[in-house]
Amino acid sequence: MRKIIEELEPSPIRTIANSAIDNKDVIPLWFGETDIITPKFISDSLKSALDKGHTFYTSNHGVHELVETITEYTSKLHKNTITSKRIMVTVGGMNALMISAEAIINPGDKIICITPVWPNFMRCIEIMGGNVIEIPLILSESHNKWKLNLEEISKKINGARGLYISSPNNPTGWMMEKKEHKIILELCRKNKIWIIADEVYERVVYDRKVAPSFLDIADKNDLLIVINSFSKSWAMTGWRLGWITIPDGMLHIFEKLNEFNIASPAAPIQHAGITAITEGEDFISDMIKKLSQAREIAIKNLTSFSKVELPASSAAFYVFFKVKGVTNSESFCINTLRKSGVGLAPGTAFGKGGNNWIRICYAKSPSLLQEAFNRIKPVLS
Amino acid sequence: MRKIIEELEPSPIRTIANSAIDNKDVIPLWFGETDIITPKFISDSLKSALDKGHTFYTSNHGVHELVETITEYTSKLHKNTITSKRIMVTVGGMNALMISAEAIINPGDKIICITPVWPNFMRCIEIMGGNVIEIPLILSESHNKWKLNLEEISKKINGARGLYISSPNNPTGWMMEKKEHKIILELCRKNKIWIIADEVYERVVYDRKVAPSFLDIADKNDLLIVINSFSKSWAMTGWRLGWITIPDGMLHIFEKLNEFNIASPAAPIQHAGITAITEGEDFISDMIKKLSQAREIAIKNLTSFSKVELPASSAAFYVFFKVKGVTNSESFCINTLRKSGVGLAPGTAFGKGGNNWIRICYAKSPSLLQEAFNRIKPVLS
Repeated sequence: MRKIIEELEPSPIRTIANSAIDNKDVIPLWFGETDIITPKFISDSLKSALDKGHTFYTSNHGVHELVETITEYTSKLHKNTITSKRIMVTVGGMNALMISAEAIINPGDKIICITPVWPNFMRCIEIMGGNVIEIPLILSESHNKWKLNLEEISKKINGARGLYISSPNNPTGWMMEKKEHKIILELCRKNKIWIIADEVYERVVYDRKVAPSFLDIADKNDLLIVINSFSKSWAMTGWRLGWITIPDGMLHIFEKLNEFNIASPAAPIQHAGITAITEGEDFISDMIKKLSQAREIAIKNLTSFSKVELPASSAAFYVFFKVKGVTNSESFCINTLRKSGVGLAPGTAFGKGGNNWIRICYAKSPSLLQEAFNRIKPVLS
Repeated sequence: MRKIIEELEPSPIRTIANSAIDNKDVIPLWFGETDIITPKFISDSLKSALDKGHTFYTSNHGVHELVETITEYTSKLHKNTITSKRIMVTVGGMNALMISAEAIINPGDKIICITPVWPNFMRCIEIMGGNVIEIPLILSESHNKWKLNLEEISKKINGARGLYISSPNNPTGWMMEKKEHKIILELCRKNKIWIIADEVYERVVYDRKVAPSFLDIADKNDLLIVINSFSKSWAMTGWRLGWITIPDGMLHIFEKLNEFNIASPAAPIQHAGITAITEGEDFISDMIKKLSQAREIAIKNLTSFSKVELPASSAAFYVFFKVKGVTNSESFCINTLRKSGVGLAPGTAFGKGGNNWIRICYAKSPSLLQEAFNRIKPVLS
């Protein structure tokens, strides 16, 4: 076994969750998914695809109609012309991240990662023999808000192969503004380095239709890879369907990577993806209403607990908070699981500086969520 | 873009097929799949899984009942005790091959590949920065049969990191005998190198229930990875479901690789996999009967064509043959596609020495298959 793989940090969330994954008494707020079963119109579409015999290999690019549907959706959403040769379907956002790493990272390459962030792409970098250079967000004390450390990014960008950034951000709920996208894009253009932008939470926003995206402003020739997924927008985490937006002229290369990684996502699931996009806007609106209510419950509870420090957040379905006196968030999460039966995610999972932070995914029903807060109130007050 | 990825050889089959993939007049014998739509009892099982709300993330190991089902199936089939901690579900055989490459290949590592073979694992080796050392099968002229070049393997095994072998073999239809498994296993044990055995065609055999396998004879601690898939045995190519059998004590490492590559296969599809195995034996028997008939048609036609040299084959659903006078099999396949409207796979796709060889996948209905042979008769006689 490769040393690098043996030593690859496992997901601390998985490590804690595995100990109690079959325990029905635990309220699981650790994973990044809602408790909403995928809506029936999407499941019906899969059933219909099976009835039509869509059970064979598809092209590496993806089922033609799905690629066209994603192309139109993305172009409209970002008011930019994206051609279908810049879109390729993937097995969720994860597979899109792994093939991005394979495409650009040679052993020893440095990739800047803006943290805290969902850690999986950092592990992809390591699998490919690259080096992760973390540049944490700064918590502006005065505004209690997360912001980019542009000074540090400017200093370290020279000599890097790429920059990985995820907005709306898991775990902080931070959302990058348009002017910051412009600054990052210009900086990366000047230094000719890749941007890998994980935008899977672009529809999980509370004051607009879609989050600002690099796709709003980038040209077709920018060294930009945007990761997207059906998981969060259409409650399809278990379906493993996503897509990648790539620069013009590179499809034939990414198709090879699909061929040699997964061939393609499952054929009937690709057909259901068409329906998710074309008929899913009402579902997204309803889901955002529910999430908005859950968000209020989470913020109201947490701000009332004396030991909790909660920065402002504006998107995704997480709250990321500090607990006074806690110096090891993994032990804290294990103890809280034992004592209160609530599954929390330790901040250590998301890169440097997360050691006394905790993430909660609040995408649960109001009653279950309130029950969880009632249970953990004693340890947080 | 990495140079290694830009230069990665695309699948010559895909290259030719892409030019005519939407042409309904072409008879496609190029891809490795039957024309059998996945049986209804499996599709029904997926529908039922959706109705039960199985639309969420699963563990990296796989849905518990599926892992247990595969474990029991494999143990019985190979009369060997395989524990569930040696099984992990994957997105088809392809994903299993890619994570195997990630697990063991450091840049510069040499992997021996027995060719002709489905080329995709050779590309995985290259993506990870490893070197492919091809050792072609020998065509014994006297018996007109393929056999291992054991002398060459013994010579080159020292210093290699692993050996990749696929039996029953795509494209030749060659099947390794038990005594050869024993020799290879002993050789790899002695040299402490990995065996990556692609056994996805183990049920596509015509004179027994299952092909000989490394799992019949290996111990739990052997450096052995066996690749399997639902694609061929249960006509589920488009479902992207497979599994990997790994040495004891390594599951936690492979689970990490699942997490960072694909998370897991789609949840409802994993549930359908349970049904495929538990209720699928009659389907396999019926399919083998059909394939057996198709095989006779293929052999009968090809042996009657004057320009064709066809070695004996015993498993999988391919015939691999030479055409007298053909020195470039890709041009030959392109011309045959244009002139006769039949999609063939060029031998160059399968490694060194395939240059004047052609592969046909005969897993088609008798009438369509006979029509294809009628069309190509003029160029082969």
